[in-house]
Amino acid sequence: MIHIEGGVCAAKGFKANGVHCGIRKNRDKKDLALIVSEKRAAAACVYTKNLVKGAPIHITKQNVADGYAQAMICNSGNANTCNLGGEEIALEMCRLVEKETGIPYSDVIVASTGVIGQPLDIEPIAAGLPALAAGLEVSSENACAAIMTTDVVPKATAVSFEIGGKKCAVGGIAKGSGMIHPNMATMLVFVTTDVSISPEMLQKALSADVDDSFNMVSVDGDTSTNDMVSVLANGMAGNDMIVSEGEDFDTFKAALAEVTKTLCRMIAGDGEGATKLLECNVTGAETKAVAVTVSKSVICSALVKSAMFGADANWGRILCAIGYSGAQVDVDKIDVAFRSEAGVLPVCKNGRGVPFSEEFAKEVLTEKEIKIDVELNGGTASATAWGCDLTYDYVKINGDYRT
Amino acid sequence: MIHIEGGVCAAKGFKANGVHCGIRKNRDKKDLALIVSEKRAAAACVYTKNLVKGAPIHITKQNVADGYAQAMICNSGNANTCNLGGEEIALEMCRLVEKETGIPYSDVIVASTGVIGQPLDIEPIAAGLPALAAGLEVSSENACAAIMTTDVVPKATAVSFEIGGKKCAVGGIAKGSGMIHPNMATMLVFVTTDVSISPEMLQKALSADVDDSFNMVSVDGDTSTNDMVSVLANGMAGNDMIVSEGEDFDTFKAALAEVTKTLCRMIAGDGEGATKLLECNVTGAETKAVAVTVSKSVICSALVKSAMFGADANWGRILCAIGYSGAQVDVDKIDVAFRSEAGVLPVCKNGRGVPFSEEFAKEVLTEKEIKIDVELNGGTASATAWGCDLTYDYVKINGDYRT
Repeated sequence: MIHIEGGVCAAKGFKANGVHCGIRKNRDKKDLALIVSEKRAAAACVYTKNLVKGAPIHITKQNVADGYAQAMICNSGNANTCNLGGEEIALEMCRLVEKETGIPYSDVIVASTGVIGQPLDIEPIAAGLPALAAGLEVSSENACAAIMTTDVVPKATAVSFEIGGKKCAVGGIAKGSGMIHPNMATMLVFVTTDVSISPEMLQKALSADVDDSFNMVSVDGDTSTNDMVSVLANGMAGNDMIVSEGEDFDTFKAALAEVTKTLCRMIAGDGEGATKLLECNVTGAETKAVAVTVSKSVICSALVKSAMFGADANWGRILCAIGYSGAQVDVDKIDVAFRSEAGVLPVCKNGRGVPFSEEFAKEVLTEKEIKIDVELNGGTASATAWGCDLTYDYVKINGDYRT
Repeated sequence: MIHIEGGVCAAKGFKANGVHCGIRKNRDKKDLALIVSEKRAAAACVYTKNLVKGAPIHITKQNVADGYAQAMICNSGNANTCNLGGEEIALEMCRLVEKETGIPYSDVIVASTGVIGQPLDIEPIAAGLPALAAGLEVSSENACAAIMTTDVVPKATAVSFEIGGKKCAVGGIAKGSGMIHPNMATMLVFVTTDVSISPEMLQKALSADVDDSFNMVSVDGDTSTNDMVSVLANGMAGNDMIVSEGEDFDTFKAALAEVTKTLCRMIAGDGEGATKLLECNVTGAETKAVAVTVSKSVICSALVKSAMFGADANWGRILCAIGYSGAQVDVDKIDVAFRSEAGVLPVCKNGRGVPFSEEFAKEVLTEKEIKIDVELNGGTASATAWGCDLTYDYVKINGDYRT
């Protein structure tokens, strides 16, 4: 498996585009994205578990209920959530895709991201769709830009691999940044592949994958109303269709995991206001559930996040976050170390502090990617969670997001 | 019941003091507090549920196991947690109190607050105790100052009331500010009263009280390792001892609640970096548990907190926080309004936005105390939670707390 360029257009038979249609005031910011498959594709989605769900979530659920879809449309600038008539607008977005591409509206995955609680005007979308469809090309770039909100960095990745001698690809784009704390679902992620796989097995692969990928990312502890990951698999790689578990399914799952985990790191590293990517690796846990709970608690702690922003090796906050996580662990067995390109800094052994050089600590913690290694010495299970530091800019961005 | 001055010295028979003994480098910051009762008193405590517990917590539990205590000692600047020999140091603090006051070490409540994971040196405490004990006076002020960490505002309150014709008082001091997200326990709070009450009934009153007071406060979602509320009741008011439920017990509980809720508001309003006190009142819930879960989720949302800092009426984030709280509510029935001294601003009706004036919204949200009223329209239960806004200064304070 190798990483390749191309994002959602890395797999055969996919085109994409993104335009500024006018939902956002800033004309330099694209706000409408479209991804289409040449052939109808197996489709799988996971959705936010927030009880407040964006209107597009409901329409997408209807449209992929039969296990197939062929296009994805997504706007930024307005979440189409907690407003009146939102579902009609979401459905109309699908109908407009049908009008311009001939793909039935019931095969369209629809998503929105942006401010909650404001009416979404269909006019700019209707006006923008002809150019959006006409400009479809074998490039992820414009679509990737159009789904960004407060994201600073575009997030696209892809891998190439083989199944049964056939060259296959999986690629994806993501919108992350804020209101990111997936709960059995995630932020907006669109993944495409040319692998031939049944809708059932595609959903199985995706549902298993998110537990180790997007569900392990947190920027700010807020689970969005519009979170969704969707995958289209159009089968154009020509492999024997994957209809059960086995070697081919495992190969596909590994490729999917490589794409999703890469996007996770991109999302966490580009969290709102973030200057650093944090990765918490928990090992030696009695169960996977313990490892997950501990790693997410550390990554979500506002005090740990602030300390990392300040490159302050205040490891007591890590012990504190483990202690209140709800996981049953023996706190007197915990070892903690910070790790980055500058080296490894052990700070805690058996739940007690060990002496360290503050100078070296600063060196380790001023790097852009900080790993927090937690060894529980209580078993063999492990988990990794990703997050980012808490900065002045997070507060600035969210102190006045709507204006 | 009326509010009076005096803090922990409002009740008869209590004296207090605070000095700078040298745990902190800044000589202008007091770091050691002592509160003593003239008579041995019924004692009740609740403690942090964090698995990582400060050494003083273990010693205090031993010392109040018999239901009685007579003194409270507390240092700031070092949490005496996750270090070697912490319990011996905490015990030695109690022994030093015995040496200077004659109160048996096993009747001393001991607490520490500050950085986690560093050895606590007994030398400055031993050196400071003679002056600390010699200066005991009928004034809360020095003790209140000595338990502060990043607190900006001293937190003391007291009330006067009658039980059986006898004049009684309950008063308290608190240290709050950061790492505040109580879980069945709380931050550091010392309460004194001259009410005569059995240890069992005192513990019953306190344990019930914290569910509606300190357990409803969150500054940053981090449950401290050293949280504790303790109450001493020395009986010097001369009322018939409260040994069962009834009118006298209810009167005492009401007075205790007035003190604890006042301290809660002080703690939330003086949260690290805070510019505003937030209060979320949830009404119309099916159960108390739903009301508690919803109100705490709103108060804890980093996005809600940031919006309040920016005086931005971004109510969609409140719906979002309710939706991911885990409470089962009908999101299409939710009404939300912001309220402050400037007026009431309804922003959401039946889960959908209602038009409002942005100018008036700014007026309402630039006040120092913001109430977020959430009506679930699904029952009769209610709850109130307190928090604060998330600001640049929170990040600043916690980006380099140790230096």
